[in-house]
Amino acid sequence: LARTAWLNGVFVAADEARISPFDRAFLFADAVYEVTAVYNGQPVDMERHLDRLERSLSEIGFTTFPARKEIAAAHHRLIAENGIGEGFIYLQVSRGAYGGRDFPAPDPARPTVFAFGEPKPLIDVPSARNGIKVIAFDDIRWARCDIKSTGLLGPVLAKTAAKTAGKEDAWFVDGDGLITEAASANAWIVTQQGELVTRALSNAILPGITRHAIFDTLAQHGLKIVERSFSLEEAKQSVEAFNTSAVALVTPVVEIDGATLAGGKPGPVTRSIQRLYYTAIGADVAKAAPWANE
Amino acid sequence: LARTAWLNGVFVAADEARISPFDRAFLFADAVYEVTAVYNGQPVDMERHLDRLERSLSEIGFTTFPARKEIAAAHHRLIAENGIGEGFIYLQVSRGAYGGRDFPAPDPARPTVFAFGEPKPLIDVPSARNGIKVIAFDDIRWARCDIKSTGLLGPVLAKTAAKTAGKEDAWFVDGDGLITEAASANAWIVTQQGELVTRALSNAILPGITRHAIFDTLAQHGLKIVERSFSLEEAKQSVEAFNTSAVALVTPVVEIDGATLAGGKPGPVTRSIQRLYYTAIGADVAKAAPWANE
Repeated sequence: LARTAWLNGVFVAADEARISPFDRAFLFADAVYEVTAVYNGQPVDMERHLDRLERSLSEIGFTTFPARKEIAAAHHRLIAENGIGEGFIYLQVSRGAYGGRDFPAPDPARPTVFAFGEPKPLIDVPSARNGIKVIAFDDIRWARCDIKSTGLLGPVLAKTAAKTAGKEDAWFVDGDGLITEAASANAWIVTQQGELVTRALSNAILPGITRHAIFDTLAQHGLKIVERSFSLEEAKQSVEAFNTSAVALVTPVVEIDGATLAGGKPGPVTRSIQRLYYTAIGADVAKAAPWANE
Repeated sequence: LARTAWLNGVFVAADEARISPFDRAFLFADAVYEVTAVYNGQPVDMERHLDRLERSLSEIGFTTFPARKEIAAAHHRLIAENGIGEGFIYLQVSRGAYGGRDFPAPDPARPTVFAFGEPKPLIDVPSARNGIKVIAFDDIRWARCDIKSTGLLGPVLAKTAAKTAGKEDAWFVDGDGLITEAASANAWIVTQQGELVTRALSNAILPGITRHAIFDTLAQHGLKIVERSFSLEEAKQSVEAFNTSAVALVTPVVEIDGATLAGGKPGPVTRSIQRLYYTAIGADVAKAAPWANE
């Protein structure tokens, strides 16, 4: 079945959607995006995704934003048209096409707004059940990783290197030997002392919506998260590790840069956070992820 | 007159050229580009631009390249169809569109190759005659600025900030307070001691084709260039400064971060380099840039 996409207010067959090559996303990566998970046919945390979209746009100089209600309605229609019970919606806003190529954009902006969606299992997947292996990769990205821009060649190179190495993902290492985040997810470890650690928010990492949700969920259960930087070496000696993102949800990491963690199997802290998060988005863990109860 | 562009081997009206929004340049900035000056109806230094294009593609993992002869022929036809005596050709190669969004690209690559050209005066322009003013801007770009990728949101923000400040360009300052380069050009100064200085090549700057040509030209005349890093402070105290790029050619810089250089007028070293470079690309300086002889 042909997928339906949404382009500048019009629903079109995804394969037939067309834009100008003068679009500033194509020429300059002058664009930001969001990926929202869909579960039980509903977008997960959509308001927070829209908040972050507006923040990203604001940080790159947009003074007006696409209408939230229209974007929300488009998400729901893309979910319906594409039959998405479980999956994701991708949304991108670029500064538009002007038929030329000047670094400063003409005023006012005429944004290109593009969205598409796909059904995709998120919870009961091998990566969530068994965990993934990650390589370490120099964090070559720009200094504003808090802006969710489409300037993603660094993550593309990192994830491609991981694939070439036979691993599933990459963790970025900054100039001080500290982990910033995964190539498209936030990175977490459980230390030998039992601390649950993830890097504090700054310009160096994305303020993850799933990260935020897990902070909320764990606070409700009185569980503590330590926000601090940690080194690749500390990560390799940790007892558990995992990634969080809108589409990866909570993905155990069982090998970091060649070091196997805790026998190469997802550990109890990661499993408990999977259970809490799956429950928070409306899943019945016993049915959707029985392995998370083991 | 409608411009002609070149898209995947086909010459089309630029305004009607269309690509898929799934193109990896649009979603990931997974693309590299070149801008080649045109003078006397001929591309300037095209072989070096094609060498650099292939190097950029190789650095991001391409193992096959678009045919050089075909690209060269397209440059000539775009020059003819668009009536470009003086101007530029823009060429971009992205890793193509696959109808989905996965960080590692499918193999083999099916690149999208796009080019367009515009007539535009390059030599006898106010910026070359009178010089430009530049702001200082934190170098927030990624760590591989030697790859000419379309991940240009940093330069977009820098040039937009310059425009907002009523200036013409920005010079990037790295974490050590050193100038890397201009937002889309290499940066040069003439020190109080009379040294002609530009930063040495590294991953932090683009290996400029015009920079390279000036090295060649000055060597032929026995003139010395010192390749070393210099600070913003040293730049503000320099006696002359200029930018070089394929389209800016040699553009005097007469103000840096609020500091006026040498009375705010292009100086004699800059003028001599303008004359040498204009001559090198085939211009008759007395006719094309009489002000450069003053």
